[in-house]
Amino acid sequence: MSSKDSGNNVHTAQNAVLDALAKGKRKKLRKLARSMHPGKLASLLEALDSQQRQAVWQEVADEREQAVLRHLDPQLAALLQRDAEAVGSELDAGGEQVFTHTGNVREALAAGKLKRVGKVFRSMHPAKAAGLLEALPPDERSTVWQTLDTERAARVLVHLHEEVRAKLALEMDEDRLLTAARTLALDDLVDLIQALPTGPGRQLLLSMDEIKRQQLVAMLAYPEDSAGGLMNTDHISVRADIKAGSILRYLRLLEDLPDQTDKVMVVDRKNRYQGVLRLSRLVTTAADTKISEVMDTDFAALPVTMTSLEVARQFEDLDMLSAAVVNDEGELLGRITVDDVVDIIREDSERTLMNMAGLDDEADMFAPILTSTRRRSVWLGVNLITAFLAASVIGQFQASLEQIVALAVLMPIVASMGGIAGSQTLTLVIRGMALGQVETGNFRVLLVKEVGIAVLNGMLWATVIAALAIVWFGSWAIGGIIAMAICINLLCAALAGLSIPMILKRFGIDPALAGSMVLMAVTDVIGFSAFLGLATLILL
Amino acid sequence: MSSKDSGNNVHTAQNAVLDALAKGKRKKLRKLARSMHPGKLASLLEALDSQQRQAVWQEVADEREQAVLRHLDPQLAALLQRDAEAVGSELDAGGEQVFTHTGNVREALAAGKLKRVGKVFRSMHPAKAAGLLEALPPDERSTVWQTLDTERAARVLVHLHEEVRAKLALEMDEDRLLTAARTLALDDLVDLIQALPTGPGRQLLLSMDEIKRQQLVAMLAYPEDSAGGLMNTDHISVRADIKAGSILRYLRLLEDLPDQTDKVMVVDRKNRYQGVLRLSRLVTTAADTKISEVMDTDFAALPVTMTSLEVARQFEDLDMLSAAVVNDEGELLGRITVDDVVDIIREDSERTLMNMAGLDDEADMFAPILTSTRRRSVWLGVNLITAFLAASVIGQFQASLEQIVALAVLMPIVASMGGIAGSQTLTLVIRGMALGQVETGNFRVLLVKEVGIAVLNGMLWATVIAALAIVWFGSWAIGGIIAMAICINLLCAALAGLSIPMILKRFGIDPALAGSMVLMAVTDVIGFSAFLGLATLILL
Repeated sequence: MSSKDSGNNVHTAQNAVLDALAKGKRKKLRKLARSMHPGKLASLLEALDSQQRQAVWQEVADEREQAVLRHLDPQLAALLQRDAEAVGSELDAGGEQVFTHTGNVREALAAGKLKRVGKVFRSMHPAKAAGLLEALPPDERSTVWQTLDTERAARVLVHLHEEVRAKLALEMDEDRLLTAARTLALDDLVDLIQALPTGPGRQLLLSMDEIKRQQLVAMLAYPEDSAGGLMNTDHISVRADIKAGSILRYLRLLEDLPDQTDKVMVVDRKNRYQGVLRLSRLVTTAADTKISEVMDTDFAALPVTMTSLEVARQFEDLDMLSAAVVNDEGELLGRITVDDVVDIIREDSERTLMNMAGLDDEADMFAPILTSTRRRSVWLGVNLITAFLAASVIGQFQASLEQIVALAVLMPIVASMGGIAGSQTLTLVIRGMALGQVETGNFRVLLVKEVGIAVLNGMLWATVIAALAIVWFGSWAIGGIIAMAICINLLCAALAGLSIPMILKRFGIDPALAGSMVLMAVTDVIGFSAFLGLATLILL
Repeated sequence: MSSKDSGNNVHTAQNAVLDALAKGKRKKLRKLARSMHPGKLASLLEALDSQQRQAVWQEVADEREQAVLRHLDPQLAALLQRDAEAVGSELDAGGEQVFTHTGNVREALAAGKLKRVGKVFRSMHPAKAAGLLEALPPDERSTVWQTLDTERAARVLVHLHEEVRAKLALEMDEDRLLTAARTLALDDLVDLIQALPTGPGRQLLLSMDEIKRQQLVAMLAYPEDSAGGLMNTDHISVRADIKAGSILRYLRLLEDLPDQTDKVMVVDRKNRYQGVLRLSRLVTTAADTKISEVMDTDFAALPVTMTSLEVARQFEDLDMLSAAVVNDEGELLGRITVDDVVDIIREDSERTLMNMAGLDDEADMFAPILTSTRRRSVWLGVNLITAFLAASVIGQFQASLEQIVALAVLMPIVASMGGIAGSQTLTLVIRGMALGQVETGNFRVLLVKEVGIAVLNGMLWATVIAALAIVWFGSWAIGGIIAMAICINLLCAALAGLSIPMILKRFGIDPALAGSMVLMAVTDVIGFSAFLGLATLILL
């Protein structure tokens, strides 16, 4: 082995490596390992203790492993190789399964097996890798992120939630981010730029070549949640007067078509949308048939200003795989594919769920504690206002409460039953509104139905609760009063559950976001005032 | 006109018509209008008063209109025709838009313009028609349903929610339902049979021809929410040793491919799945290339037992348009297309939303009041138990409440703040679990984070609430007590929000269904006991 002839140079590098090791600078370590000659690296490895050696080895790029091993002491080489082979066989035996559990990944990371984790992440589908990354705490996430090569990192970025996407993109070197961005499809690139803060986003945009930049600027002009924000410009368009055979010859020249191509768009001389030619139709058409004879004209193109929720609804209703996007003049601008629509549907449902608890659906599960605290405290503050409103109602009846303490014991029951009944109506209406099925046209029918249910359930549960209250406190009067209060509150809850989302929507507020809080305020206030008010009237 | 020569026959028919009119039997009326000679029908129309005439005219099939009009008194014909033309011009002027609002449909129905409504429903896409039908109250829904022809009815059935689907299917004549069912794709037919009660479902199954019945029985054997329950058997499969040109010739013989065909499946001699050939690849391949050279083998087939949620996740992650389904031996059984996956994603999100309020996501918005009352009362009953639990906690502190009534006023604030904070954690965890991102592996990290947020938000809001309480009741002691109670409850809420869904999941209970109710019970009980307990200890 040649550890003697390397002299000063090795020692400088060795010191740098030891320094990086001590400070835990993995990225620096990786750079050093990449720049050193395999022989020098091998002698360095031999000089380290076993723990340091393992740590440095984790940073050696896969393609350099063999070269380094050749320079190593055979015993040591065998030792390090065993580790590499173990990873190999794990990968063969369905490596993905082994690492789909966050726990395994974190264990491997804690044991310093970064190399192993990196390999598994690279063998995974980008979407799975993105999901797994999000499930890791921020520091471990960054560690794994550094092991991914640029192209793969780009593909993983696309699948991340917005907040995590921005954070990891900003963790990349400028060059690396730029290289990664260049490999992305236009619509994904638009998403990335929109996720980034203005400065870095602008920089990324400016670094693109002229043509791409112009396309990007055009796409960025459309709102993120519109057809324009969703579309891609990788469609293939043909003219209606061509024959099927010519199109097949033309497509063969392209060798491979863009992902998710199920149809080509048919346009006129001025690029105005005429219809579509499905590939499944093209392959069953004789070569001398004109496109105009086999194209579908009943697929309406989507206007570029259509909202993404309408786009999703259209895809769902018409079972489309892709659709053309046109401007006001009917000119073909791009196409939307079903994979993006699937994401919208998923995001939309996540948003409703998260908003109902006052959470941001794009937020990182592991956002810093201070950030999360600030975000969530807004919602708690709003709730505090409604809670003090309810408390002030109770405050009006302090005299009654002082005399009959049973009222204080029972009053939460009235409020809670109203809250649950109201939220059932509210949820039904929110879902119905999302499906476009609840509107002024059938409001009265729904009203009759919900009031009917409230009356029936009110009578049922008023009876049960009254009986329990009578047994508990031995007072028929209290039983009667709580029964009346329950009936009143369930009735008001139905009315509130029905009208609150309609009113919020009219004011342009998302019913899923504010609905349940407003409802709770109403059912609390009415529950407490009905129960305590009736008690004051009747008992005092 | 020939009202004299028709004799007894007309009178019998006329009586039948008048009888059907009087009893509002529209279906009978339509049958009569269909079976009568146009001339007889015309003379009958002339004999009726204008209201009756309008009602009968609504039931005359479109294709018979002209024949009947020819026999009518010209003045009368002009009158009825004006109506028909009005409908025509409305349809031309974007008929769908006119009727997308439930209100317009209901107005038209109320005005007896059934014919008009029927025409618009027939011009609409089945999915839109289904949505609009669900937005109508049950009796109007039935009326419109009767106007749809059998084939269209079949296509609308597919898009309805389960409860409405079963109800409307059972409203059809047996023959009509059977004819409708025959036009459906196998997977849709399976859905229909599963939606129907056992008796009619079985009858429908038995009425299919031998081959279809066997396929159906095989598909019905798989759970509704598995890959087997989702798949269709209309795939096209080819062998790997064939050349691209031969496949193109073979496909041309088929003339048109099944809907949503983006690829053909490649199998071996024993029908074992080998890979896929995308049409977008086929059209760019030279005719003499072997399939084995251009097929994709990295699309893994889905096992027939995979759950539908896993199938959806796979489609989302891999941006697939369709996927092969195989049995344990690797034999190709069918394929799943992305349109069905989109439905699953939508249904899954609806289910979470509805379950969180204790509602059934497949239920009809206009189910009979008694049915809805019964369903919802279950949830109210469960809530009553938790409400009485909270009340019994308060009951323990009656002595304290009697002495310091301010406690009764403030106690709902403590419970409510805990409930909101807890539901934020709960929702985050439920979402994370749905994405597969929350598990034992990162539980501790999440725990640290959520506890941190709870401590910070607890301190913030405890201070605010304490200040307000001190100002309100002029007692520093009460301020201190409520501050401590808020901190305790927010901390417990975070722990509960984190652990309840994990525990429920371990017991196989859907966290979205029971999570928020259990959480509310915990935050109520802890909120009340912390606040009242501390007050009793300190103040008394």
